[in-house]
Amino acid sequence: MEFPEIVPPDEPSRAAARARQGRLTKPAGSLGRLEELGEWLAGCQGTCPPEPLTRIRVVVFAGDHGVARHGVSAYPPEVTGQMVGNFLTGGAAVNVLASVAGASVRVVDVGVDADPFPGEVSAHRVRRASGRIDREDALTEDEVVAALLAGRAVADQEVDSGADLLIAGEMGIGNTTAASVLVAALTGAEPVAVVGRGTGIDDQGWMRKTAAVRDALRRARPFTREPVALLRTAGGADLAALVGFLAQAAARRTPVLLDGVVVGAAALVADRVAPGARDWWQAGHRSVEPAHTLVLDHLELTPLLDLGLRLGEGSGALVALPLVVAAGRVLAEMATFDSAGVSTASGSEPETA
Amino acid sequence: MEFPEIVPPDEPSRAAARARQGRLTKPAGSLGRLEELGEWLAGCQGTCPPEPLTRIRVVVFAGDHGVARHGVSAYPPEVTGQMVGNFLTGGAAVNVLASVAGASVRVVDVGVDADPFPGEVSAHRVRRASGRIDREDALTEDEVVAALLAGRAVADQEVDSGADLLIAGEMGIGNTTAASVLVAALTGAEPVAVVGRGTGIDDQGWMRKTAAVRDALRRARPFTREPVALLRTAGGADLAALVGFLAQAAARRTPVLLDGVVVGAAALVADRVAPGARDWWQAGHRSVEPAHTLVLDHLELTPLLDLGLRLGEGSGALVALPLVVAAGRVLAEMATFDSAGVSTASGSEPETA
Repeated sequence: MEFPEIVPPDEPSRAAARARQGRLTKPAGSLGRLEELGEWLAGCQGTCPPEPLTRIRVVVFAGDHGVARHGVSAYPPEVTGQMVGNFLTGGAAVNVLASVAGASVRVVDVGVDADPFPGEVSAHRVRRASGRIDREDALTEDEVVAALLAGRAVADQEVDSGADLLIAGEMGIGNTTAASVLVAALTGAEPVAVVGRGTGIDDQGWMRKTAAVRDALRRARPFTREPVALLRTAGGADLAALVGFLAQAAARRTPVLLDGVVVGAAALVADRVAPGARDWWQAGHRSVEPAHTLVLDHLELTPLLDLGLRLGEGSGALVALPLVVAAGRVLAEMATFDSAGVSTASGSEPETA
Repeated sequence: MEFPEIVPPDEPSRAAARARQGRLTKPAGSLGRLEELGEWLAGCQGTCPPEPLTRIRVVVFAGDHGVARHGVSAYPPEVTGQMVGNFLTGGAAVNVLASVAGASVRVVDVGVDADPFPGEVSAHRVRRASGRIDREDALTEDEVVAALLAGRAVADQEVDSGADLLIAGEMGIGNTTAASVLVAALTGAEPVAVVGRGTGIDDQGWMRKTAAVRDALRRARPFTREPVALLRTAGGADLAALVGFLAQAAARRTPVLLDGVVVGAAALVADRVAPGARDWWQAGHRSVEPAHTLVLDHLELTPLLDLGLRLGEGSGALVALPLVVAAGRVLAEMATFDSAGVSTASGSEPETA
């Protein structure tokens, strides 16, 4: 399967934004990370000042995992499908947080182990639940390609519909187990260094999860330099779709706000298949999952928030979204020293006392 | 001068919020700090779930400082008045950030060294510029009381007008110098440990600022246990007004989002004159000013954001505001496991393989 070439964000627009920051009525650099965010947005849009964000879309990729039946999660596998239902009726955290931040939510079922959902939700379903990765491949060769293409198609649909910022989210009982395997495989970390508590497993569950990661990692190790084979062996339909989505969003020059460890694991793979894609991303937050910190370090992304979140769905990215919106609007809307008639820095010479 | 008794936020409402968090369709605790924020809001409002925030007000206290003429800032003192003009025409960071976050801005001139501003802006002015604190008192005994009462009156006006969340901001060239003196006096820190770069002074300026803080601190030390005398000696009209405002907001059971080092220094004083006021506050962010970290440690407040901000005006609190709004709405609007028909945690027992 071929992946698109990634062109970096526009450097002249970014440089123009940096220069503009220095003319706004505030001490240069005094808005810290917010200034960098605004410059990144200008670079992604290829224009300075950046345009207001008018269509921010969250896409939640849902899928089940065979490994979930074997005690790696605090929740039973049927929760994946139940939560998809909850997304569709607007009762989940992702719905409330999207509403607060001015984004809209789309749910894409790529592998939920339930009857198909209404409308287009299950139009991209690849199979019902990915394979049990500690013993068998997550997907067949055809399925991994189908899932990657599904993610790509969804990114294309969203960009074609005018999305100017995308957020990738996920739902799937067991998906932090698969994500942890991908992160361990790509960073060389040991199972104990990547496995967290997920939705909140106890010590016994943590040990079962670590054993599952260890077994899956043994199956995955031969493919650490073959990202598609890695997704097939130890990923899942949701993770592969996320990879296709993230790579294509970057190819389509659309900025993305990343969420937690599952999206992060997919981002790590996406930046391998589409090198440079990371330049189109910001990390919304640092999850409490240890594998997420490995992802952030490897992608050299500094998270905007560190609030002890571990929910997924896109929730952490949505909590961070207002910062990105604010960064763009500050850069576009603040007065300049000239326009406001405010004196610029004089150095700090004392007046004659 | 007498200060009001502070009643803590309502513990039963907070406990009800904590219990409700466990029934919402997410793993218990998975929204981390956001869950605590929602519980705090419920406690402040005395009701669970919390009501939506409908009138969020930023009050920017502006004042000049005699010490500013002596090389402690990168900007000339006339910038204070010019920036008040910029606030009034909506061109400053505080205006844009308030607009993004759904808050409105009020500017209160308590000591700007300029002709009075239109309308009510200068109605609470105590004097033109506070005294040069390294050599003389900032205020007279009458002036410090007038400034404290001005802050109190503004808090009363805002709460009586229906404000359900307040943000304290400030503007004043030289005000981080006075704030640093207050923080050093109240925490026992040395001048070199509190003095930062403010708006962006160079090394020479930093040395002058540190010398000014040292001299002012020598004048202030006798009053470390007399907060009002401390404000008179080494504070300023803006800092005293902020103290009156923060103490009265807590007395009126109104939650406050704190900004950076200047508001933080006033908060440190306010919690001395009105013990327990801190329970009504959240720290919006951690500023790069070293004195701010001392403030946060002493008040035992964990900042929501750490983004390298050092602008003031209320900007850091406004960047954090959407987190508080989101926390309240998540707690109020998410579906419960019952209502959404989602299975609860089962522990993590494996099924029979």
